[in-house]
Amino acid sequence: MGARVRNSEKETAAKSGEKTAAEKGLLGRRALLQKALLSAGVAAAGASFAHADDDVGTNAPDWMKTPGRTFTPYGVPSKWQEKVQRTIANPPGRPGTGVSRTPLQRLEGTITPAGLHFERHHNGVPDIDPARHELLIHGMVKRPLAFSLDVLLRYPMETHIRFVECSGNSGGYNQAQPPQATSGEINGLLSGSEWTGVRLATLLNEAGVAPGAKWVIAEGADAAAMSRSIPLVKCMDDAVIALFQNGEAIRPEQGYPMRLLLPGFEGNMNVKWIRRLNVTDSVVDARDETSHYTELMPGGKARQFMFPMGAKSLILKPSFGMNLQGPGWYEVSGLAWSGAGRIAKVEVSKDAGKTWELAALTAPVLPKALTRFRLPWDWKGQPATLMSRATDETGDVQPTRAAWVAQFAVGQGYHFNGVQAWGIEADGTVKNVYA
Amino acid sequence: MGARVRNSEKETAAKSGEKTAAEKGLLGRRALLQKALLSAGVAAAGASFAHADDDVGTNAPDWMKTPGRTFTPYGVPSKWQEKVQRTIANPPGRPGTGVSRTPLQRLEGTITPAGLHFERHHNGVPDIDPARHELLIHGMVKRPLAFSLDVLLRYPMETHIRFVECSGNSGGYNQAQPPQATSGEINGLLSGSEWTGVRLATLLNEAGVAPGAKWVIAEGADAAAMSRSIPLVKCMDDAVIALFQNGEAIRPEQGYPMRLLLPGFEGNMNVKWIRRLNVTDSVVDARDETSHYTELMPGGKARQFMFPMGAKSLILKPSFGMNLQGPGWYEVSGLAWSGAGRIAKVEVSKDAGKTWELAALTAPVLPKALTRFRLPWDWKGQPATLMSRATDETGDVQPTRAAWVAQFAVGQGYHFNGVQAWGIEADGTVKNVYA
Repeated sequence: MGARVRNSEKETAAKSGEKTAAEKGLLGRRALLQKALLSAGVAAAGASFAHADDDVGTNAPDWMKTPGRTFTPYGVPSKWQEKVQRTIANPPGRPGTGVSRTPLQRLEGTITPAGLHFERHHNGVPDIDPARHELLIHGMVKRPLAFSLDVLLRYPMETHIRFVECSGNSGGYNQAQPPQATSGEINGLLSGSEWTGVRLATLLNEAGVAPGAKWVIAEGADAAAMSRSIPLVKCMDDAVIALFQNGEAIRPEQGYPMRLLLPGFEGNMNVKWIRRLNVTDSVVDARDETSHYTELMPGGKARQFMFPMGAKSLILKPSFGMNLQGPGWYEVSGLAWSGAGRIAKVEVSKDAGKTWELAALTAPVLPKALTRFRLPWDWKGQPATLMSRATDETGDVQPTRAAWVAQFAVGQGYHFNGVQAWGIEADGTVKNVYA
Repeated sequence: MGARVRNSEKETAAKSGEKTAAEKGLLGRRALLQKALLSAGVAAAGASFAHADDDVGTNAPDWMKTPGRTFTPYGVPSKWQEKVQRTIANPPGRPGTGVSRTPLQRLEGTITPAGLHFERHHNGVPDIDPARHELLIHGMVKRPLAFSLDVLLRYPMETHIRFVECSGNSGGYNQAQPPQATSGEINGLLSGSEWTGVRLATLLNEAGVAPGAKWVIAEGADAAAMSRSIPLVKCMDDAVIALFQNGEAIRPEQGYPMRLLLPGFEGNMNVKWIRRLNVTDSVVDARDETSHYTELMPGGKARQFMFPMGAKSLILKPSFGMNLQGPGWYEVSGLAWSGAGRIAKVEVSKDAGKTWELAALTAPVLPKALTRFRLPWDWKGQPATLMSRATDETGDVQPTRAAWVAQFAVGQGYHFNGVQAWGIEADGTVKNVYA
């Protein structure tokens, strides 16, 4: 076919003056074929509508009438999205200690933008000169080795999509009354990224682990020298020295220029700004595995070293702060994950756990990664209680909140993975409820 | 095990004073078991090193001696990464027209950070108020429909990792002499993202496509009213109205608040700021499918409507600007993709195409998505010519550059997918070569 050159852009723009009566799209009630959604993830739509006299074609909007802005070397979100931020919580006078949480309910898919990845710092974010940073592997090894960033960049790399979750995430569910806050404010110590780096086993094998070694003490280069004892078996399994997050160099608050990534293990062990790995035969009893990150049990004892995060799920749409706008079709959507592997299924209840339906899982379902689940819902305007319940490939099932709470001393909030519930009122208001 | 509370952080920090002699890690020559890399993606490492007297443990670095900075609502890359930017190219006096390219050789994995996704604008980036933007579906439909952002957010969503590539990408390879520039500067009109949105077929079915309809004219809400004719069959297949990119709302330069995503089709057709879809029985012959984005053939004809992007691959490590630092082990790594589906294999040649080896593909290998390939290379210091050749699941194989060029008139640069070559000189310098 020959090229037909004609300036059709002008013509097309002129068509903006057409008067076009258009209805407002909104899924008809008979629209969503649930079977199709569960298999292919898509539904055909029906044909009943509320409004019939829109006029969008009449005038071109202002932003089509003048040239837009130019190119940028590094882009940022729209100014209309400025409320989509991390929620910061830290004690007065201690700017480097605390957390910031990912606004999960504002996001979609399974990747967390690096700028919104949750933070947990113990003495602030260090400003590390990558040319002066080294990772030392020492202790019970045949030969201590120091790795500069330039050297690590020559090693074989691996890329995996993984979640990181703080073991204190969702700890607010240990309160007597359900916190009335957004899902991100309660559950936002959770993020998912594509991580790329060097398999730690490669480096440990190069150093030569001595017989009798059982632990690796990981230390960060922050002003807290944040340290944790890691089982050697995990370090020789799927642990990675991560250098890249979502394609680019790891962000400063995630450990620039390198962090330890222990897929499925509680966030605190994924030591950021990783500086030293001391191979030993015993644990170091660091502050963050004794005074913190241990689980208080009934009877005054504490449980130490609960490493993997359990099977868990959250409904994000709808959720607190996102009230329903009248009866009709909605998509119930959220995230599920497990530190033990892949999510096998997510069930959703719309009646406080009396009955459950299977949600569709967005492919690919990856191990130790966030999995998006979706289920259509034709809300008739009745009060309802929404719950989700994840099961992982090892058979681990999310317990009820009551069963979870009963295991621990009052106030223990680490490793919460109980079923969560949103109460929907007749006017569409969404509240956090214990059910 | 009971909790043992002790301030180990201080002890650990004190250990920074230890004197630890450490060698510099660098993979031994017998380290990389290629078989293991191809299967599991990881290699054990060997035991020969160059240096033996590092002293990294002697002193804690400066950044451990004072508290780091506080939390941020939305994070940005490290200041040490400020050179990792898009490369902007636009004509003098026309700030809204041109491209910016992704610095592919600086990135890893398969996801492009949204801030570094390539741009192609025809009259700048419009500043669209999402509350005033609507998508109109009209023309040969039973009922025209207008969709606000709020309404679309109630529809069933889908999430897919897909690439977008400008059909002019790598056009520089049509030059008589190989451009001496970075891979991103040559090939950076290519990016990969996790996109989430509403299947277009759902919306078209709701509007009700009339018999005889064959095309959909897509128009953007930019000041160029950028328009393309899209086959209806594609719109009813895997096309999506994308609202989210890498988890968050689409960035302004990618089409905020919504864009058309046509997986595998040339970038220009994935109309940003999508405003109208006019269902018709014929093409509109818009400027960007007549004067642009057509392929000049021998004999003065032009080929129009070459929609899908062909099977293609790039070696990014090493590449121009990233010279080898002496003999030893390196990882050869790059990206492969195809508009027709999944990548089936990537072969790498280290001898200008005489012999080929299979590279390892990073799982999951997804359709119409960037796939990372990796292969270890023990460079002995000899001059070498590196090439990669992708084959997709339909059997499409990257042609040689010479075969690709021979199809077209001199100077035609759209849809380049020929094999590319990096010449490695004995001193480690990497040059772009035609081989």
